[in-house]
Amino acid sequence: MIRVETVLDRLGEGLFDKVAGVGAHEVVVESPRHEETLAGLDDDGITRVLWALRERAQDLRRDVRFRQFVLFKNHGAAAGAALAHSHTQLLALPVVPREIQAEVDGARAHYLAKERCLFCDIIRQEEEDGRRVILRMPDMLALAPFASRSPFETWILPRRHAVRFEDASLEECRRLAQMLGDVLRRLDRALEQPPYSLVIHTAPVADDHDFYHWHVEILPRVTRTGSLEWATGFHMNPTRPEDAAHFLRQLTLG
Amino acid sequence: MIRVETVLDRLGEGLFDKVAGVGAHEVVVESPRHEETLAGLDDDGITRVLWALRERAQDLRRDVRFRQFVLFKNHGAAAGAALAHSHTQLLALPVVPREIQAEVDGARAHYLAKERCLFCDIIRQEEEDGRRVILRMPDMLALAPFASRSPFETWILPRRHAVRFEDASLEECRRLAQMLGDVLRRLDRALEQPPYSLVIHTAPVADDHDFYHWHVEILPRVTRTGSLEWATGFHMNPTRPEDAAHFLRQLTLG
Repeated sequence: MIRVETVLDRLGEGLFDKVAGVGAHEVVVESPRHEETLAGLDDDGITRVLWALRERAQDLRRDVRFRQFVLFKNHGAAAGAALAHSHTQLLALPVVPREIQAEVDGARAHYLAKERCLFCDIIRQEEEDGRRVILRMPDMLALAPFASRSPFETWILPRRHAVRFEDASLEECRRLAQMLGDVLRRLDRALEQPPYSLVIHTAPVADDHDFYHWHVEILPRVTRTGSLEWATGFHMNPTRPEDAAHFLRQLTLG
Repeated sequence: MIRVETVLDRLGEGLFDKVAGVGAHEVVVESPRHEETLAGLDDDGITRVLWALRERAQDLRRDVRFRQFVLFKNHGAAAGAALAHSHTQLLALPVVPREIQAEVDGARAHYLAKERCLFCDIIRQEEEDGRRVILRMPDMLALAPFASRSPFETWILPRRHAVRFEDASLEECRRLAQMLGDVLRRLDRALEQPPYSLVIHTAPVADDHDFYHWHVEILPRVTRTGSLEWATGFHMNPTRPEDAAHFLRQLTLG
């Protein structure tokens, strides 16, 4: 049901003196049906998409030139999707990109200061507080992050501390699929099928990242970013995460 | 002709423990005519907009709580402009935002390594090379940056090394106005009145930034950013800066 296309491509040749001009870019076609969406697949269908990503990352990891995997999905033209047929993408990069490095540095600093995983702390703190929790499942938690960058930003975290998505078991992929399907259907209902960006955050390939904790971030694209976001890296968000979480939590899906 | 509205607002209260919840946000209304655009103003009109920004930043600088000014413009709804009437904004922040800090750190590292200003070096190098130069004027240079983040990204730099826009003379504002008007009219012609983001980059308020060089960055919003840009900070640009510069250079304005 899943087809994988591989394009080995030269990235940034001549642009970064110290980076090898090598990379991989793969597309996971999520369904044979052109009109299907990821949210419309059943749990088995979503599990197969996640498992395909996991299998491809496992395979590409054998190439020692790759330093970072980026697993992502653009849904809808307004979110940058160039193809209408529902798909997910995997990028293998010879460098750790700056945004990922910033997140990794933050998690490392927290670990050095507290001797605890930043994301495990977020899970514990948000469960205790409860106001930003969207959905609880035995192995997964969905929440609206404290400093949400846009309305209805949603994170899904595995409760068990685990460094890399690509080391998840089939059972863990099944549980993520169940949570992801539920969350995407709630966002579809709340925001009327919004365009969205989805990224699976996983640790850099190098093996000194035990403090990191893989997770999924979903950003519905319902506001426009302007000069201010570009110039500063600050984000204007008119919706409180507590309100978004409450709204998503109380929806009853058909 | 220029009206300035001031809104003192509380920024990020409770979000950043060490940041005072203080700021200023001002809007410069560029023209009394609702349909006017900045590109449609004559040189005197654009000079008055720039001078108003400069005057307001000079005044706000007397408040020692402000660490950074951000002067920017969103043109068109797709670029995040919430008001149709043409306007420019000034933000005074109690913190140096991360994107500005990253640029400042890069300029400082270059200065420490070379004992020369990064932007003066870019001006010299690009003038020698010529392929990315859009427009030369006696005091200003417009170019397509080497690592343009989107098609037709355009920078305007004063040739004279100067740290802060808000210290520019009236004559310098006049010369920037002349260059800015010409560049915006070329972009309007080339891309059929594109939405765009414009930011005047000026040094943080603290006085140890002599290595910095103020300049203007313009980003036409002709491509959509997706998950990849969000996750990595990398930008996909299908147009070579050399091609954009050549196209803009050879246009004859009516």
